[in-house]
Amino acid sequence: MSGFRHVVMFKWAEGTTTGQQDEVAAKLGELPAAIPEIGAYSIGVDAGVNPGSYEFVVVADFADRAAYLVYRDHPAHRAVIDAYIAPIVAERAAIQYET
Amino acid sequence: MSGFRHVVMFKWAEGTTTGQQDEVAAKLGELPAAIPEIGAYSIGVDAGVNPGSYEFVVVADFADRAAYLVYRDHPAHRAVIDAYIAPIVAERAAIQYET
Repeated sequence: MSGFRHVVMFKWAEGTTTGQQDEVAAKLGELPAAIPEIGAYSIGVDAGVNPGSYEFVVVADFADRAAYLVYRDHPAHRAVIDAYIAPIVAERAAIQYET
Repeated sequence: MSGFRHVVMFKWAEGTTTGQQDEVAAKLGELPAAIPEIGAYSIGVDAGVNPGSYEFVVVADFADRAAYLVYRDHPAHRAVIDAYIAPIVAERAAIQYET
């Protein structure tokens, strides 16, 4: 295999509603149609199995690092971050790795 | 699609060596052979693209929540956590979600 994966998790600020979270998921879900460099795009909400878990996750697969960087810096992506994610984030954990 | 994914990231304590990290990867890499409930198992080390990233990640896919729980609580998994991961963890971020 040869690819590049981006994983990011969020915990939301107190008072964040499920509606706000749904909006993040919906807006992110529009990105694969707007950014052809996205290979696979998996969005998830914590299943509630373990205490202390993060609340929201994105696992995104790209052909290579360059394709990831296009996504990272794409105006459509930044717009979702700025308008929907940044206002409600309490904690963020991320990593990128070669698959 | 219908499955269950576990994602966990770690930052290591100061002074952790790449040898110790390699040992964690090697020991975790033995788990799919020992735990048939594991579907896909992806281990990664941060590619160094973004500052503040976590250092190590595991993305594990299971048929369902029950299969994940077998993995979570499996003695072979707990042994790796206890002997190789717990002694060097500084931060841990995890989530489980239905795929």
